[in-house]
Amino acid sequence: MPTYTPPIKDIQFVLHDVLGISDRDIPGYDELDREFTQAILDEAGKVASEILAPLNAVGDHEGCTLENGVVRTPKGFKEAYDQMREGGWTGVDADPEYGGQGMPNIVLTATGEMFSSANMAFQMYNGLTHGAMSAIHAHGSEEQKQTYLTKMISGDWGGTMNLTEPQCGTDLGLIRTKAEPQDDGSYKITGQKIWISSGEHDLTDNIIHLVLAKIPGGPDGVKGISLFIVPKFMVNDDGSLGERNSLSCGGLEEKMGIHGNATCVMNYDGATGFLIGEVNKGMRAMFTMMNEARLSVGLQGYAQGEVAYQNALGFARDRLQGRDVTGTKNPDGPADPIIVHPDVRRNLMDQKSFVEGARAFVYWGATLIDEGHRKQDADAEAMISLLIPVIKGFLTDKGFETTVLAQQTLGGSGFTREWGLEQYVRDARIAMIYEGTNGVQSLDLVGRKLGSNGGKTIMAFFDLVKAFIKENESNEAIKAEFLDPLKAASKDLQAAGMYFMSEGMKNPMNALSGSYDFMLMFGHVCMGLGWAKSAIAAQSALDNGASDKDFYESKLVTGRYYMQRHLPMTATHLARITSGGETVMALDAANF
Amino acid sequence: MPTYTPPIKDIQFVLHDVLGISDRDIPGYDELDREFTQAILDEAGKVASEILAPLNAVGDHEGCTLENGVVRTPKGFKEAYDQMREGGWTGVDADPEYGGQGMPNIVLTATGEMFSSANMAFQMYNGLTHGAMSAIHAHGSEEQKQTYLTKMISGDWGGTMNLTEPQCGTDLGLIRTKAEPQDDGSYKITGQKIWISSGEHDLTDNIIHLVLAKIPGGPDGVKGISLFIVPKFMVNDDGSLGERNSLSCGGLEEKMGIHGNATCVMNYDGATGFLIGEVNKGMRAMFTMMNEARLSVGLQGYAQGEVAYQNALGFARDRLQGRDVTGTKNPDGPADPIIVHPDVRRNLMDQKSFVEGARAFVYWGATLIDEGHRKQDADAEAMISLLIPVIKGFLTDKGFETTVLAQQTLGGSGFTREWGLEQYVRDARIAMIYEGTNGVQSLDLVGRKLGSNGGKTIMAFFDLVKAFIKENESNEAIKAEFLDPLKAASKDLQAAGMYFMSEGMKNPMNALSGSYDFMLMFGHVCMGLGWAKSAIAAQSALDNGASDKDFYESKLVTGRYYMQRHLPMTATHLARITSGGETVMALDAANF
Repeated sequence: MPTYTPPIKDIQFVLHDVLGISDRDIPGYDELDREFTQAILDEAGKVASEILAPLNAVGDHEGCTLENGVVRTPKGFKEAYDQMREGGWTGVDADPEYGGQGMPNIVLTATGEMFSSANMAFQMYNGLTHGAMSAIHAHGSEEQKQTYLTKMISGDWGGTMNLTEPQCGTDLGLIRTKAEPQDDGSYKITGQKIWISSGEHDLTDNIIHLVLAKIPGGPDGVKGISLFIVPKFMVNDDGSLGERNSLSCGGLEEKMGIHGNATCVMNYDGATGFLIGEVNKGMRAMFTMMNEARLSVGLQGYAQGEVAYQNALGFARDRLQGRDVTGTKNPDGPADPIIVHPDVRRNLMDQKSFVEGARAFVYWGATLIDEGHRKQDADAEAMISLLIPVIKGFLTDKGFETTVLAQQTLGGSGFTREWGLEQYVRDARIAMIYEGTNGVQSLDLVGRKLGSNGGKTIMAFFDLVKAFIKENESNEAIKAEFLDPLKAASKDLQAAGMYFMSEGMKNPMNALSGSYDFMLMFGHVCMGLGWAKSAIAAQSALDNGASDKDFYESKLVTGRYYMQRHLPMTATHLARITSGGETVMALDAANF
Repeated sequence: MPTYTPPIKDIQFVLHDVLGISDRDIPGYDELDREFTQAILDEAGKVASEILAPLNAVGDHEGCTLENGVVRTPKGFKEAYDQMREGGWTGVDADPEYGGQGMPNIVLTATGEMFSSANMAFQMYNGLTHGAMSAIHAHGSEEQKQTYLTKMISGDWGGTMNLTEPQCGTDLGLIRTKAEPQDDGSYKITGQKIWISSGEHDLTDNIIHLVLAKIPGGPDGVKGISLFIVPKFMVNDDGSLGERNSLSCGGLEEKMGIHGNATCVMNYDGATGFLIGEVNKGMRAMFTMMNEARLSVGLQGYAQGEVAYQNALGFARDRLQGRDVTGTKNPDGPADPIIVHPDVRRNLMDQKSFVEGARAFVYWGATLIDEGHRKQDADAEAMISLLIPVIKGFLTDKGFETTVLAQQTLGGSGFTREWGLEQYVRDARIAMIYEGTNGVQSLDLVGRKLGSNGGKTIMAFFDLVKAFIKENESNEAIKAEFLDPLKAASKDLQAAGMYFMSEGMKNPMNALSGSYDFMLMFGHVCMGLGWAKSAIAAQSALDNGASDKDFYESKLVTGRYYMQRHLPMTATHLARITSGGETVMALDAANF
């Protein structure tokens, strides 16, 4: 059975040494000093390691069951959910006006990482509710907020997002679910939605479905889509639950992983729904919460990598096999622990340098979200909007790869259910697909985000990297090992951007054929930036005589490893990109 | 439900256009003309697509069951096995003296690819028997061959390889299974073996276990290991089955994939065994069949990639979502098929260029095996021995990645069991682990194979690439697009080899920390060579007025794609390698 140890020291390092959150001029950040975040992280860490982690394998083995329209979550999920609700974890960053704790996204992100590492399938119930809450908070009427939001923040009710239909996932213009206006201002919702995570379950008294549907007679395509609140149980004026709405779970999807989360076919048979936001502006309402949702999926990716790495490391320290080629390390044992072997270390360092760099990257993203929301900082908003497809696409791709590497560390044991590594691989896999496949993320990045604001935001990103390098280049130790590789990688990224501009003008396929590589190379540059910042923070702690020398020196070594062994990938991505779209587009579909 | 179409045209292309097998001066190859291989491939293709493929999902869902020591394979496996046995597929390349068909390894490889694509878990039963047959053929006495080999070749009996024990997998020096000599010349075998593929099942009347064990009083470590034949049922002098031997299946492993194959805990409780080969030379006996076994695992890797790609392609042609940015392609439909989108094509071309290049690579390897065995060509033997860790490690890593890419093509459908792509991912995963993990392959390559014969074999490889380039460089079209990139990649590989020589002398960790990257870059060079050969063959077919222009032109495009988009990886691998072992080895185990 795998174990999970909350990496609180590493989280604190990023929050305080790297990002210096309590010194930042962001409303709500002033109280986030080391002691405060330590206390929160300790509490969340306990929930993660003591309540959620022990249910991870249970959830996988048992899965969810559907009987007579009732979905039962795995044994123990309900009790765990109640404990999380009672602990206030369902409303961490929610508006205090509706009962939330009003903490910044950075706190949601840091605690969410641990919940997600401990039990991804479980945490998805909270994740979907959070998405629905964000939409209602941003677009709902005051009455809708009072009616639904308060109960969702308290954790009494759950929430879902209903987008996909059998004939459409990415291309939402094709949805068929109908919303027919009724005399009382409500709508009758009819249609089938599929792959609805947390669509039906026994954790909460009510479930508030947010459903994309078309009002008959509206414009074609995405311009005719509206968003509706469709509660499982109708809500009486006094807030008590009324009759069952005409909707039901028609089936559970059998899938590769996240078995503990119910993935439902949802049938709406003239169910009563209430418009949220404006008519035909459903896509906009949906997209306002996309940044946060996609950041949290990126988080899932590396969170699975983190827990998988922890277990790979434990195995590598314990498993005795072979001898160190430079001399026996464990003379009293029959063999040395496999962590002495260079290729095992290479594998572990790939994992470690990814998860620690990813944390610095994604937490930085969370501070940008907070700057956008809490300071109405349009530049921060634009920057996080640019980075979101990178956070989602890069971190879930590499997070999945990290779980595969961790599984490999265990050799044959990694393939068995008993050791549990294979579950991390299966669970992490979905994060590359949902919330927009990573291919779609790359199109969003290259097709929309790069050119948005007339290209100002991407230039601001390069300026930011340049300024960071300039500011720190007098630090000789850091310059050669961190800043120079970062500069080289950033130049590759710029060259790719220039290629898109010049060759994409001639033929858009030249740009779009390179979108995935661009997303990945962008990720490497952001990781390089995160590691350079981390290295400066670690060096500074050492210079200031930090007591835990080993910890900070380990950060420097791990960062150097990433710069040496991963940043050079940008050159290959650039070569792929500049080969253009010709061979990609050449074949007729029939000649594949 | 996924489908499988035998890629016979592609196989024939490699056998005849690329490798020109019937013109090669290898005993047994003269009869392998196009018509002959077409007939064999058609027959094997029917078995694969009509008998084995329909059982693939069944085997995955149902798995094997153990009850009272009896293992039942999934419904339909027994009938399918009987059909394969009756068709003579269990003895394709076996010695005619014992009832085999005596065909070269190239035929076994080409037919095995299809069986493996169609149903990897099923084909493993044949694969393990094949391994055991090879060992008995190479090291058994004439009596042992008459007793066991004939029945295994006919498919009446199965075989297994018993190496791993709970405390040792890679480090076989630690095995504890005892073999105590008896007065009659036999041995009593006592111990526990784990992860024994096909260890117990209901497909054959008897199972011949080959078991590594130590004779008490022998040398420590691997020098004290001997190999034993331990039949499930004793064999009477007349060849009939006698009493049950004292061995049993103690449990089935629950694992991530290949559920249709029984992975057994095998308990030997004083079972009667017979020495095969010499006392204390068990490892050597085991290793003689390693080349073939590892080639067949490399084959599994890309065979899963092939079938996954086929299904991804089918989906991409059918699924309507979004519109071609350069203009609607399917005006009568609600959307265009997703194969119009550049990033979907990028993904498909990654898959296609891998599986087709891999076929050219591994079939070339099979011809080297045949040259080694059938012509006693020591150079060919040395070359395949050098290439085997590359074939096994590179093709299973990239084959697995290809199944992941194919799964991604399907978006959310790829994560569901219904579409079946996720099974290919789970099944392909084991190939990176068994028959020596890919990390162990890379150590074998860099630590043993590179320096063997005083480095002559690796020099012969570079000479071969150089001679190939020289021979073809007057072909202008081929030169720029295939030979130049191949030359550059080969130079990177040489530079890595030079780095190992100079820096590995100073500190072996500098070489061993780069072994995995070396294995992968070696793989890219071999793929580049395979694609360059394929391109020349395709170009020549076109020049000679081949009727199927589209087919050959598709080969040229796909090859160019690989050269442009995958060969540049060698530069990044070289950068990783030349960063040396310092950051890999720097951390104390406690400071990870």
